[in-house]
Amino acid sequence: MAGYGWISFTTDYGTFDGFVAACHGSIAKIAPDIKVIDVTHHVPPADVNRGAAVLAQTAPHLPASVHLAVVDPGVGTARRGVVLTTPSGLLVGPDNGLLIWAAEALGGINAAHELINSDWVLGDVSRTFHGRDVFAPAAARLAAGAAPEQAGPAVDPDGLTRLPNPVVTVGDGWLEAEVLTVDRFGNVQLAAEGSALSGLGTELMVNGGVRARRGTTFADVNVGELLVFADSADRVAIAVNNGRAVVLLSVIPGDIVRIAAR
Amino acid sequence: MAGYGWISFTTDYGTFDGFVAACHGSIAKIAPDIKVIDVTHHVPPADVNRGAAVLAQTAPHLPASVHLAVVDPGVGTARRGVVLTTPSGLLVGPDNGLLIWAAEALGGINAAHELINSDWVLGDVSRTFHGRDVFAPAAARLAAGAAPEQAGPAVDPDGLTRLPNPVVTVGDGWLEAEVLTVDRFGNVQLAAEGSALSGLGTELMVNGGVRARRGTTFADVNVGELLVFADSADRVAIAVNNGRAVVLLSVIPGDIVRIAAR
Amino acid sequence: MAGYGWISFTTDYGTFDGFVAACHGSIAKIAPDIKVIDVTHHVPPADVNRGAAVLAQTAPHLPASVHLAVVDPGVGTARRGVVLTTPSGLLVGPDNGLLIWAAEALGGINAAHELINSDWVLGDVSRTFHGRDVFAPAAARLAAGAAPEQAGPAVDPDGLTRLPNPVVTVGDGWLEAEVLTVDRFGNVQLAAEGSALSGLGTELMVNGGVRARRGTTFADVNVGELLVFADSADRVAIAVNNGRAVVLLSVIPGDIVRIAAR
Repeated sequence: MAGYGWISFTTDYGTFDGFVAACHGSIAKIAPDIKVIDVTHHVPPADVNRGAAVLAQTAPHLPASVHLAVVDPGVGTARRGVVLTTPSGLLVGPDNGLLIWAAEALGGINAAHELINSDWVLGDVSRTFHGRDVFAPAAARLAAGAAPEQAGPAVDPDGLTRLPNPVVTVGDGWLEAEVLTVDRFGNVQLAAEGSALSGLGTELMVNGGVRARRGTTFADVNVGELLVFADSADRVAIAVNNGRAVVLLSVIPGDIVRIAAR
Repeated sequence: MAGYGWISFTTDYGTFDGFVAACHGSIAKIAPDIKVIDVTHHVPPADVNRGAAVLAQTAPHLPASVHLAVVDPGVGTARRGVVLTTPSGLLVGPDNGLLIWAAEALGGINAAHELINSDWVLGDVSRTFHGRDVFAPAAARLAAGAAPEQAGPAVDPDGLTRLPNPVVTVGDGWLEAEVLTVDRFGNVQLAAEGSALSGLGTELMVNGGVRARRGTTFADVNVGELLVFADSADRVAIAVNNGRAVVLLSVIPGDIVRIAAR
Repeated sequence: MAGYGWISFTTDYGTFDGFVAACHGSIAKIAPDIKVIDVTHHVPPADVNRGAAVLAQTAPHLPASVHLAVVDPGVGTARRGVVLTTPSGLLVGPDNGLLIWAAEALGGINAAHELINSDWVLGDVSRTFHGRDVFAPAAARLAAGAAPEQAGPAVDPDGLTRLPNPVVTVGDGWLEAEVLTVDRFGNVQLAAEGSALSGLGTELMVNGGVRARRGTTFADVNVGELLVFADSADRVAIAVNNGRAVVLLSVIPGDIVRIAAR
């Protein structure tokens, strides 16, 4: 098998400690020529949903890669490690739902294997740092050309742990959807796909009382006004031109937002 | 044309979302052998001045590069994308003033081209994420050897959008200058060049009431005292030995600071 | 001499300014094929202890490298720059104690050389930014194959500046140890090695009044309960399952924590 030239890397490790670097070290020791693209290491600690969302929205824009992701509050317990095979790349990480949205964004799960090959680990495996000792080494071996079936036995993709699907309801002239993420700019991204906006027209009301306008970029509304648009990940999103929608709407991920024609 | 081995990358995207990684992905897809040096992605959102200053002070210390910079509150509007050619590298980004100080630090603008080549973009161009779909792909093609004139038609450098020049006034025994940046250590950097200090002597007064001393490094003054010096970017700067000048002076970028002999 | 393929890089520069990128630029100009692993740039400003600890715990997990570290409140003074040779890599930085714990973790100091070779610097050396002008260029030359003795004269390793050893006292059924670091997850790491736990049994008391249990991973205690364990750097550490031990214990680095059998 030819392997991959790239590993993408997503964690909740932060960049204040040396955890990310230690994982880079594990990769470098095993596969020194593989390049690593850091997706983010600022997933809030243990926030599997946030990690899953950011990886799913970023992975399709990367070259064919082994996607290594570790947001793993269950480290050291019986939760499995897995390797997922998709039409456009592999994913490696804990079986806690973190990888599945990205796998679907990459074309779906063709195969899943449990990660148990003890010849693949590096050093004595710490029970609290599988990123360094188990997952990064596995990603490096896979990128270097090892086959997923060498990781361990095949497992039924239907048996993988899944996160609850975010709430999305589309009605006649309205939609209600869960806040999936809030980005650096304060833009509020909903779980609904961009196409859900098609029946709503241009003049909108958010959460019953806030006027908004449908458009395609920030300057389609006046400074300080609310824009509803399909964002760069093709999700329904709400922004304020030159402002922060998250402040104006006062929502957090998991909240339900209603958008209706007015 | 030979191209460049390096792309530098400056944005206000932050590192909590996957935006930076998606741009790295665009580069990797087009020019997998080009190396990327991240200048910073923590420019405050939409703060074009700050982005322009940090890029101008960093670019001269990088190998010959294509400098990709995106601080772009006007994304999706009619504002142009441009490619600037300098004696020691190219710059790619929005025509909003972000690139010009760096271009001057790299020797001046030899040529400017509008970035409109639709064959250069990746995928369907999002109206809110030109970094991923337009600018990063263009930087990658230029680094890989494409000529700037392939980006689009030449434009008059004098017609490029410029930021206002920061205020700098040098008198007899005093100078007044705008605060350009405040760094991680709380050092306050003024827009004046280091040579502006030459007539001021050693014993100084800042903003009329705070005593300071001219020197060349932090330990030239006692702990807690103010140092005025030419910093590593050859700008007049104010530091506190073992402290934070920004707190002592209570200034922010854009404020005017007066330094006078006493 | 063959050199090294990797440079690791640790500073207190932060990632909001262009300081880190300028150092990457210095390395790229001198040794374009060397790869850099950033350990962290978020050491608190001038916190030499924290920098020393994170480097010591990360360096052993990296490929053989030149470890470049700059936490340097004495920049521009008479403090020396040094190159330390260990059995598994070189270290470059200021002689202020920053490098020594890492050198010991890499097998001990075989030789030390003062860094004074003026042919090695880049450009005019700023008196406030030796990272860019002195240390990064030196690391690049060493990685590219220059011998440590080319850096300058040999110095006695026993004369190097050392940080005070953190307090660790192990008694009969108890230990007292200084807090070395607090990580992203709020886990409190003590200076004591993991073996210090061997005589304490399973049921423990922290600081006289907080009940804890010895285990090996977070889920060995109930949610909200205190775990005492040997962490991934083989130090005694205290965690809260699904919580933040640092908040529960209200400690900071340098504080003494007592763990006793109950």
